[in-house]
Amino acid sequence: MRAIFSCSSSSVKNFGSFSRTHLSNSFNFSKRFKVEIFKKNNLDSCLNKKIVCGSVRMASTFKPEQARVPPAIPLPTPVITKFKIGLCQLSVTADKERNIVHARTAITEAAEKGAKLVVLPEIWNSPYSNDSFPVYAEDIEAGREASPSTAMLSEVARTLKITIVGGSIPERCGDKLYNTCCVYDTDGELKAKHRKIHLFDIDIPGQITFKESKTLTAGETPTIVDTEVGRIGIGICYDIRFQELATIYAARGAHLICYPGAFNMTTGPLHWELLQRARAADNQLYVATCSPARDAGSGYVAWGHSTLVGPFGEVLATTEHDEAVIISEIDYSQIDLRRTNLPLQNQRRGDLYQLVDVQRLNSQ
Amino acid sequence: MRAIFSCSSSSVKNFGSFSRTHLSNSFNFSKRFKVEIFKKNNLDSCLNKKIVCGSVRMASTFKPEQARVPPAIPLPTPVITKFKIGLCQLSVTADKERNIVHARTAITEAAEKGAKLVVLPEIWNSPYSNDSFPVYAEDIEAGREASPSTAMLSEVARTLKITIVGGSIPERCGDKLYNTCCVYDTDGELKAKHRKIHLFDIDIPGQITFKESKTLTAGETPTIVDTEVGRIGIGICYDIRFQELATIYAARGAHLICYPGAFNMTTGPLHWELLQRARAADNQLYVATCSPARDAGSGYVAWGHSTLVGPFGEVLATTEHDEAVIISEIDYSQIDLRRTNLPLQNQRRGDLYQLVDVQRLNSQ
Repeated sequence: MRAIFSCSSSSVKNFGSFSRTHLSNSFNFSKRFKVEIFKKNNLDSCLNKKIVCGSVRMASTFKPEQARVPPAIPLPTPVITKFKIGLCQLSVTADKERNIVHARTAITEAAEKGAKLVVLPEIWNSPYSNDSFPVYAEDIEAGREASPSTAMLSEVARTLKITIVGGSIPERCGDKLYNTCCVYDTDGELKAKHRKIHLFDIDIPGQITFKESKTLTAGETPTIVDTEVGRIGIGICYDIRFQELATIYAARGAHLICYPGAFNMTTGPLHWELLQRARAADNQLYVATCSPARDAGSGYVAWGHSTLVGPFGEVLATTEHDEAVIISEIDYSQIDLRRTNLPLQNQRRGDLYQLVDVQRLNSQ
Repeated sequence: MRAIFSCSSSSVKNFGSFSRTHLSNSFNFSKRFKVEIFKKNNLDSCLNKKIVCGSVRMASTFKPEQARVPPAIPLPTPVITKFKIGLCQLSVTADKERNIVHARTAITEAAEKGAKLVVLPEIWNSPYSNDSFPVYAEDIEAGREASPSTAMLSEVARTLKITIVGGSIPERCGDKLYNTCCVYDTDGELKAKHRKIHLFDIDIPGQITFKESKTLTAGETPTIVDTEVGRIGIGICYDIRFQELATIYAARGAHLICYPGAFNMTTGPLHWELLQRARAADNQLYVATCSPARDAGSGYVAWGHSTLVGPFGEVLATTEHDEAVIISEIDYSQIDLRRTNLPLQNQRRGDLYQLVDVQRLNSQ
């Protein structure tokens, strides 16, 4: 055991007391990521040797802007800052054609109720099983006939002049399968495509075992997209467990993170709402989730409970497990308000921890 | 708007598709932190140009071990892996001598009920106010007479042969004041001292305004300590809002994080349990919190609700706002179980994000 963790002697030790530990301002954001940490300066602190504290450590030395590498981007101003969102918690069957018609009906209902942004569930055109994914998969890039599910999304977004975060469907690309979310703008254009980054591999004996990685390939990049209704980060289901992804989205200026998801009957009650609220409260932004409705007779039983959470971690709208179209209001001014009330962004300790957004750093 | 965030053209773009983005294994852990990111290799992906996907991206290329910099430390094996914890939710008055006697009584009660580890609340020897901090502050390093509060903790830990996470008291060190938690081992030795890293500065007009930084100085380091009852990370109250600290502790091999805290009547109902459960579930370890009991007549009204949370984010024991001694069982084998069930540590994407523990990195 290193003494640095274990204080077994009678003297008080602590982990690393630095008088001048901070990272250089001069990040090199080109091809090489070079962060300099100043040489450890072993001045005795009053913690270790009972000397009187000397210089005052000012808050500015905490370097909160360096807690995010690269530094966080300010929130952009979208075309619309206050609008209705619709979350379509859909029943999903083995009949793909029915699922497409059914989703279209729900989207239309949400738009008729005023939704400018509509979110669908994870895997809404297919049963949720490794056997079904290759059968129901579509080649999204190959055009309308090869992907009737996303063709519908494009057409209905254009017709209704709404933004759609299209849940997810199994995607075939060459010899690989992905769990993929398409985002369409009000012209029906495909604005972004998110492939589930963290595959759902879980093994709780007697309760649930599922290995998505048996059939699916993981996506290679976070996905954030500017729409009329704000800058939206996308995660699919298990992606929500990795707080780093949400924090990266917040640092990239997201107003809202959408997680189509299908938590199960074991982790749903324990973690579904918890994780949404935590991502929203920690990052002070909106989080929307959308699940399939529960079908107790299916091989994979979804928890349901699609929800909208505000930037204070508060549940703004939710439902039970039955099919539902949830309509609720988003007001991005709430983000500014919460960040003013509780200025976490100015209080982080970039001298102690840094979250590195590897791809953004490398692109600069 | 950079195209990298906004896909405004008809083609699908995404944020940074890299065929070989990963960080070098050869971290230089000496005085300079040098991370190399391989040169961006702009191979067209099937995402962008409809080409057939080529090589299979194996999970190993995700480099989960690089999601923590330095890499996470395996859990150590403490002397005792299953034991009772006592959380003493204490009433706090303006009478310091009474507070000390009162705390001692509660600790003794917890030990009599079998607790091997006892946790006290934030600021248990003084009213929680900027006016009181300088009046009640003690010089912990100057010896028994200068610090009757911690002298009692040391003596009772030794007498009862228990480990104590001593909540916090205002500490005077030279001309500075800190909000400080002392940890004592079963011999009564001071094992670690945590000074609140993130000071509580909040301004929610009409509800709560408090600026701890007016009088207190922030601590300069995370604190993790090996005890008979496991490796324990310490945070004080507002420290719990910064998920990076908890994640750093998890990466340093913590079994348990203790947060003495005094959330208020605004943020308590919204966030107190949420944050504890999120820190536990995300990091798959135990979290214990301990608050002062509520005193509706005091200048600062605490929420109460001291709680023990297990590594699945489950509340194992909690209470309301009145004074209470909570006894509950901790079993560290649950950590291994949860990490086997849900192997988040193997599923993180070190190729996409990295949390840097600045001081640990610099100490290597």
